[in-house]
Amino acid sequence: MVPRPAQGPGEEGILKAAIAVMSEQGYHGTSVRDIAGRAGLSPGALYYHFESKQELLATIMERGIGELLRRTRAALDAAGDEPAARLRAIVSTHVLFHLEDQRGTMLGTSELRALDEPVRTRHLDDRHRQQRLFDDVVVQGTERGVFATPIPLEASRAVVVMCTGVAGWFSPRGPLTRTEIALRYERLALDMVGAVE
Amino acid sequence: MVPRPAQGPGEEGILKAAIAVMSEQGYHGTSVRDIAGRAGLSPGALYYHFESKQELLATIMERGIGELLRRTRAALDAAGDEPAARLRAIVSTHVLFHLEDQRGTMLGTSELRALDEPVRTRHLDDRHRQQRLFDDVVVQGTERGVFATPIPLEASRAVVVMCTGVAGWFSPRGPLTRTEIALRYERLALDMVGAVE
Repeated sequence: MVPRPAQGPGEEGILKAAIAVMSEQGYHGTSVRDIAGRAGLSPGALYYHFESKQELLATIMERGIGELLRRTRAALDAAGDEPAARLRAIVSTHVLFHLEDQRGTMLGTSELRALDEPVRTRHLDDRHRQQRLFDDVVVQGTERGVFATPIPLEASRAVVVMCTGVAGWFSPRGPLTRTEIALRYERLALDMVGAVE
Repeated sequence: MVPRPAQGPGEEGILKAAIAVMSEQGYHGTSVRDIAGRAGLSPGALYYHFESKQELLATIMERGIGELLRRTRAALDAAGDEPAARLRAIVSTHVLFHLEDQRGTMLGTSELRALDEPVRTRHLDDRHRQQRLFDDVVVQGTERGVFATPIPLEASRAVVVMCTGVAGWFSPRGPLTRTEIALRYERLALDMVGAVE
């Protein structure tokens, strides 16, 4: 057994380094040596924590979607029964999640192709779960007559796509803060589903 | 001078092969040899047409955004003066463009980081031009009182993001055709800008 390194960045630091390097060079253009170098470790020390580049990518992607699902479900639990409040809650959660770790979440989109099976299918299933949480809220709103859109499932998908897309353009230098963007996306989502005021 | 190959896939075929291989393996994970192999050429024959992998990527990205801008401007010229008609026209154009070549347009997003300067900045400028075509239509609509959104620039950006995003989920196997999706996105965009009926 490889002795555990006495100090170093630990798993979190290695994952951050992996996200940084893979975001710049792409999964296939990145070596374990590159990641270890960014984390300030020897490749051997990195292998103590992760057995391969693939395991690093799988860990990044599984943790990401798992955390997003947890937060979205918690937001729904806290939001009560009214469809507009529920939609606001999950839009805000989804937007803030993608603004919190822009590079990590964008990696989740651009390197999906690089995930090996069965992790890839499991990840896609989780993404569909996230989409269905939105679908259920929007469809419930139309059934209750508080959302007027004639195309709830297309609206729901477009809401998720635009809320995921914030990671691609947000700048921490402004002009809007993360919270301001989340609030504006609540407004856009309500408009897109035709929320009855 | 290298003699021009008597036959072969030509530039179009090479660009298609480059899009296919780069979509699967990422720019940094792709070699000129991989692309030549996919196109059924020797690397030497490929170098007759393109001097490097970077020139291939630059050509794919510049042709893509150039064609999108041309089509969007033509759609505006044909759409007349009414903001809702103008928004429908550019939404439809943008959606259909991204559904026509899903892999090529997605490459344009995921491999932007791999473009060298000055091509990268030129490409970003062209993307901003495309965004401004949408911004102008939406702002004009709010100024005329036919679009009610209080946040026209956010709505305009979200419209472009959701219309670009169709490349990420569309399946030619259905259930909706490209034209049906374009029509539904016209509806979603009009709702998001608060179009007054």
